Amino acid sequence: MSRLPHALTLATLYALPLHAQDSTIPATVEQVAPQLGRYTQDVLSDRLWADQDRLSPRDRSLLTVSALVATGRTHQLDPFVSTALDSGVTPEELSELVTHLAFYAGWSVALPAIDRIAAVLDDRGLTADVTLDPELLPYDEDAEAARLASVDATARPVSPGLADATDAVLFADLWRRPGLAPRDRSLVTVAALIANGQAEQLPFHLSRAMDNGLTFEEAREIPHQLAYYAGWPRSFSALTPMRQVFEDRGD
Amino acid sequence: MSRLPHALTLATLYALPLHAQDSTIPATVEQVAPQLGRYTQDVLSDRLWADQDRLSPRDRSLLTVSALVATGRTHQLDPFVSTALDSGVTPEELSELVTHLAFYAGWSVALPAIDRIAAVLDDRGLTADVTLDPELLPYDEDAEAARLASVDATARPVSPGLADATDAVLFADLWRRPGLAPRDRSLVTVAALIANGQAEQLPFHLSRAMDNGLTFEEAREIPHQLAYYAGWPRSFSALTPMRQVFEDRGD
Amino acid sequence: MSRLPHALTLATLYALPLHAQDSTIPATVEQVAPQLGRYTQDVLSDRLWADQDRLSPRDRSLLTVSALVATGRTHQLDPFVSTALDSGVTPEELSELVTHLAFYAGWSVALPAIDRIAAVLDDRGLTADVTLDPELLPYDEDAEAARLASVDATARPVSPGLADATDAVLFADLWRRPGLAPRDRSLVTVAALIANGQAEQLPFHLSRAMDNGLTFEEAREIPHQLAYYAGWPRSFSALTPMRQVFEDRGD
Repeated sequence: MSRLPHALTLATLYALPLHAQDSTIPATVEQVAPQLGRYTQDVLSDRLWADQDRLSPRDRSLLTVSALVATGRTHQLDPFVSTALDSGVTPEELSELVTHLAFYAGWSVALPAIDRIAAVLDDRGLTADVTLDPELLPYDEDAEAARLASVDATARPVSPGLADATDAVLFADLWRRPGLAPRDRSLVTVAALIANGQAEQLPFHLSRAMDNGLTFEEAREIPHQLAYYAGWPRSFSALTPMRQVFEDRGD
Repeated sequence: MSRLPHALTLATLYALPLHAQDSTIPATVEQVAPQLGRYTQDVLSDRLWADQDRLSPRDRSLLTVSALVATGRTHQLDPFVSTALDSGVTPEELSELVTHLAFYAGWSVALPAIDRIAAVLDDRGLTADVTLDPELLPYDEDAEAARLASVDATARPVSPGLADATDAVLFADLWRRPGLAPRDRSLVTVAALIANGQAEQLPFHLSRAMDNGLTFEEAREIPHQLAYYAGWPRSFSALTPMRQVFEDRGD
Repeated sequence: MSRLPHALTLATLYALPLHAQDSTIPATVEQVAPQLGRYTQDVLSDRLWADQDRLSPRDRSLLTVSALVATGRTHQLDPFVSTALDSGVTPEELSELVTHLAFYAGWSVALPAIDRIAAVLDDRGLTADVTLDPELLPYDEDAEAARLASVDATARPVSPGLADATDAVLFADLWRRPGLAPRDRSLVTVAALIANGQAEQLPFHLSRAMDNGLTFEEAREIPHQLAYYAGWPRSFSALTPMRQVFEDRGD
């Protein structure tokens, strides 16, 4: 495996765009945990992010930003928001991503993430053009009927308030907003579920992601990407429910 | 659904008292995620917090503060501590709440929360009058015998140190402190368990909460309130154990 | 139980070395939650940390630092890093600990922890001498064959990228680095798994820890130590998988 110059090695610790590297090398890593700097270069930069066959840089960015937002690791967010923009994620998609995650990981993690996204956009002279009243995407009638039957069976008898909001806000509105494609919205959701250890909801959302266009080859790289940002155990806990989905779908 | 003036819309994002709204509107939300501002107004303010039939503002505050403390989202705490005080939670009850959560979510989340509670109390010229050696509430002998049998069966053979501390500190002392009513102490515990994804302990504590006076109608609104602050998946994972408790109790 | 002077009472809240106590007593605890200060003295200082029969101060420090790093509670880390150094943990061991946890809890929690460890080392005039290319410890052939069979059965069919990195980076390299003894590396891993609620991976790693020299008496005190720093529910969720390991091993 080739070795890049030392400055780049540490810059990639934060997966920074090259021009920003000089001012942001964390001296503490060199000082206290140089081996972590080396792993970052050899494993994250040279192998993980460089592997565009298994997953595009755009998808790796969406997964990583989502995992960091969902787990509340806001202080690590800036370089990955930058990388997301560099790999083709639009400001409007970032706006929809963080709004989506307010529901899937809590207002309490979305709000500080908005501050960081705003700062990165501001630095780059970008603004998010969000359409407040867009034409919503059509329902997938079959998928919606199946989802509703499931909520009627499991959620409504226990918490009618939660069931009503799930129907009226999440699936009649949020999921149908066109600013983030359904396939990407599913990717964001799956990342949040894995990063927060929510294996229970993973089969529904992974299956939905694949219905929405996520391929088998892309899906199986997701736990690899997330392992570095949310920890190996979270990814390993996702493997059994993922396997069940793959088998049920005949992948 | 009625629309409130724009300034109020964004103020309620943090559920702030009206007089504080002008200086605290986060411009970044308007700029980056205006749709999240609108959801906050339409869904959180106009529907969730306004629904006093299903759950009182005092209970909604206790749940929300507990969820934010238990998940370590200290930076979001101030306006909800303020709202709690506005809805009748006393400074002493907040003191007992955070002391209780030191055990149920860790010293590491309780200590920074204490700093925020102290700051809000200070701003309002309030102090917490905590009785250090109060007369403890009597044991519920039957409940305590059942709990002890369970700890003897599951915890003591594995970790005698943990079992002893559970008996001597949590149930002989903490739970019997009169500064927070047992029903509210249970509510705080249930919120922490759901927000941190601890479904295993939920049946015991939800059942105890209902023994302590939490009604069926109040209980079923809990996952709805928490969904916005700890994320939809945490609330959905609580539904199956909650249903089991409701069925076992004949609700 | 003996009472120590009041200044010490609150200093031990942060388990500080005595000479540092005067400047670091958090006045907010006295003001808002004095009972938590008393629990800290009576339960944490006088009982938990003082109990060297069940677990050494060095092990209690390794567990506590690992739990705080793994849960991202970086703001609470400094005094426990100090206590770890006081109880014999070396700067190199801290470097390996945080590098190890980058994999087991995510780069996103390791990086801010490195900043705090660097600050404490700097305060004490210490540096971490990390050998970048040490002679790696030999494989335990039998353990590695069993581990590989398990990864082949569960991980590789779902996520080949994750399985390959597990083999090539974690078990061929990270675990074999000699700067942190295998028994301590296992202890760090177990602490991270319990603190983050990852009961699924606990049997494998607890069993490995005991193969690596952790005794039955030490193992059973782990959930007691962690309960105060990651919350009672996390420790209770660890009891069932721990019991299974003890029974399977005939302890």
